[in-house]
Amino acid sequence: MQHQVVIIGGGPSGTLLALLLAQAKIDVLVLERKTKEYVLSRIRAGVLEWNTVDMLTKSGVGSRMNTLGYVHEGTFLSSANRQFRIDFKKTVNKQVMVYGQTEVTFDLYEALRKYDVKILHEVDDVSLDNLNKEFSRVSYKDRSGISKTVKTQFIIGCDGFHGISRKYIPSKILKTYEKIYPFGWLGVLSETPPVSDELIYANHERGFALASMRNKNLSRYYIQVPNSDKIDKWSDQSFWDELKFRLPTETSDKIIIGPSIEKSIAPLRSFVSEPMSWGNLFLAGDSSHIVPPTGAKGLNLAVSDVHYLSKSLISFFVENDKNFLEKYSETALSRVWKGIRFSWWMTTVMHNFPGQNDFERKIQLAELEYLSNSIGAQKSFAENYVGLPY
Amino acid sequence: MQHQVVIIGGGPSGTLLALLLAQAKIDVLVLERKTKEYVLSRIRAGVLEWNTVDMLTKSGVGSRMNTLGYVHEGTFLSSANRQFRIDFKKTVNKQVMVYGQTEVTFDLYEALRKYDVKILHEVDDVSLDNLNKEFSRVSYKDRSGISKTVKTQFIIGCDGFHGISRKYIPSKILKTYEKIYPFGWLGVLSETPPVSDELIYANHERGFALASMRNKNLSRYYIQVPNSDKIDKWSDQSFWDELKFRLPTETSDKIIIGPSIEKSIAPLRSFVSEPMSWGNLFLAGDSSHIVPPTGAKGLNLAVSDVHYLSKSLISFFVENDKNFLEKYSETALSRVWKGIRFSWWMTTVMHNFPGQNDFERKIQLAELEYLSNSIGAQKSFAENYVGLPY
Repeated sequence: MQHQVVIIGGGPSGTLLALLLAQAKIDVLVLERKTKEYVLSRIRAGVLEWNTVDMLTKSGVGSRMNTLGYVHEGTFLSSANRQFRIDFKKTVNKQVMVYGQTEVTFDLYEALRKYDVKILHEVDDVSLDNLNKEFSRVSYKDRSGISKTVKTQFIIGCDGFHGISRKYIPSKILKTYEKIYPFGWLGVLSETPPVSDELIYANHERGFALASMRNKNLSRYYIQVPNSDKIDKWSDQSFWDELKFRLPTETSDKIIIGPSIEKSIAPLRSFVSEPMSWGNLFLAGDSSHIVPPTGAKGLNLAVSDVHYLSKSLISFFVENDKNFLEKYSETALSRVWKGIRFSWWMTTVMHNFPGQNDFERKIQLAELEYLSNSIGAQKSFAENYVGLPY
Repeated sequence: MQHQVVIIGGGPSGTLLALLLAQAKIDVLVLERKTKEYVLSRIRAGVLEWNTVDMLTKSGVGSRMNTLGYVHEGTFLSSANRQFRIDFKKTVNKQVMVYGQTEVTFDLYEALRKYDVKILHEVDDVSLDNLNKEFSRVSYKDRSGISKTVKTQFIIGCDGFHGISRKYIPSKILKTYEKIYPFGWLGVLSETPPVSDELIYANHERGFALASMRNKNLSRYYIQVPNSDKIDKWSDQSFWDELKFRLPTETSDKIIIGPSIEKSIAPLRSFVSEPMSWGNLFLAGDSSHIVPPTGAKGLNLAVSDVHYLSKSLISFFVENDKNFLEKYSETALSRVWKGIRFSWWMTTVMHNFPGQNDFERKIQLAELEYLSNSIGAQKSFAENYVGLPY
């Protein structure tokens, strides 16, 4: 068996890349460890940069998004019970789209069917060989437990932080950078009308809170909790009480509460591994870098990797030009670090850090006060939030 | 003896305030612990915000400054051997003035002579009483050792970080915020032509460096050193070698070295005390807040305090309106914290911190890379550097 490209991982970055390559008539195989149902039901990110919206629209998977998604022209930030708005449209003439990753993945799977792209689910024991030869090999067990081997020119690791791909870059070459934040996000999904049409990021002395939404009758709320907290510590009522306490009064007074239909705690981490390629192996998305959810950069960085990588692969196969592939790691990382920086900054300024002293607390408040008053600072915030140009 | 206002401290903030009050025909006395010669020879800040330039010009002490000072329309920053320029003129249509604090103080003393403002030097054992009564009392020993007492309506503490004024705010009311940075600046003054017409702030893995200037034949250079370093560890040659190593090659190749005429190590500290007033006592400048020199905010924040305070006192004496005096602390502190934030940010992004890990180092580089490319970020930098509006 032979394919020009084998993609490890059938999440949004793997399937978007597969779609772009298939559209350029490149023969691609996607291997996914989980079932299709599992992949399509994961609840993840919800805010798409305009770059991402453009990519999806141009790839022909934008119609449901453009019908069901919510265009947000700004966002709110709050501290000390005062909230202010940053207007994306006015400051940088761009916007973002609220549309769940679950929906994006659904749209991509639908499109891949049309192009007859082969996705194998429940694939196990994936291993890679000959990464530095002209052709490489991917071995795996299919869903029936039968061992298979594929010959391929390029292997793309879209298999997330815990995936196997990154581990094939020799440790003496791979350099990693990491920050673990001393808190997590407790998130609740609830079938209630969202309190605000736009997101509200709240800095509070008791910890961060976020009022987000999926659609007109589906709210997504978060509060910062210690890493040590267990989910059963938080009843729905205690969650709503704490959320209301942290949001500014003008907002919390209007929250409509209801039973949670999903409730989970996610840890926060910044992580980058360099380089993003080695031999015939190329990494994209979470397999190479992780951001905390503050600022909604995770999925969007994955899509930006796919942008650079699809161009590089198409340039190689269609124009026989290896130049872009050789520069892929450097090009992608330059933008990745900007997203890492923004997520880190927004996490740092919005959260309560255990052991934070009074000076550090006042610096946070001064930063938000400055941001609330400065067009320059708002422009800088907005251009990062809506996504720096590719 | 009686004066409407007694100012403790004859440095730039005390003398500027005295001048503004004298011009409004308010009767003011200035008490200074050191000799006039000492005050006029202190080498301190060198970069004036345009707010400061305006204040000095409007007060009639701008003529020497506007002749001898150097208008800078931008500044350079560098990291990883690459330097880039932030254009103040283009981004925010403002500029700064390079003109030493020594010169500013000289101009102010000259002007005070014209207005016959009484400045007593070598005054000792200053103590304050009745701060919460209608009239307060300042007691001191004059240069001949004779004890004196002055009755006054307002006492202004312009006596710096180590001054006595702040200590009269009861400790149960005074709240302080502090950050001590784990390094200092080794500064050299040298009679050599400056390497650059504009300042160059350099981030280097061995530590921060700054190429600054006083005039066409007077250079001011700095390098970050550990707090534990003693000045005699640094010969002129070792200073020049380290400075050149940290500046980008395109600059260091052009440095003209020469003997140092002044060489000293200054520690870096951020400090704010709140409130800035208590009863008839009002604080301005270093007596209430300290910034690290990165970003040149120290003198400029003192001048902004003097701006608010002079308006408040004139409003009281001329229009019998106590409103501004009552709001002085809050008004001044709001701008102080913005300067504190900017100095802290610029210090944090430009210096090497002991124990800094690889992630933190990459965040610094990503921040500078982003700043080098973003008009929004440059606008935000520039508006802070040239000085936020009063």
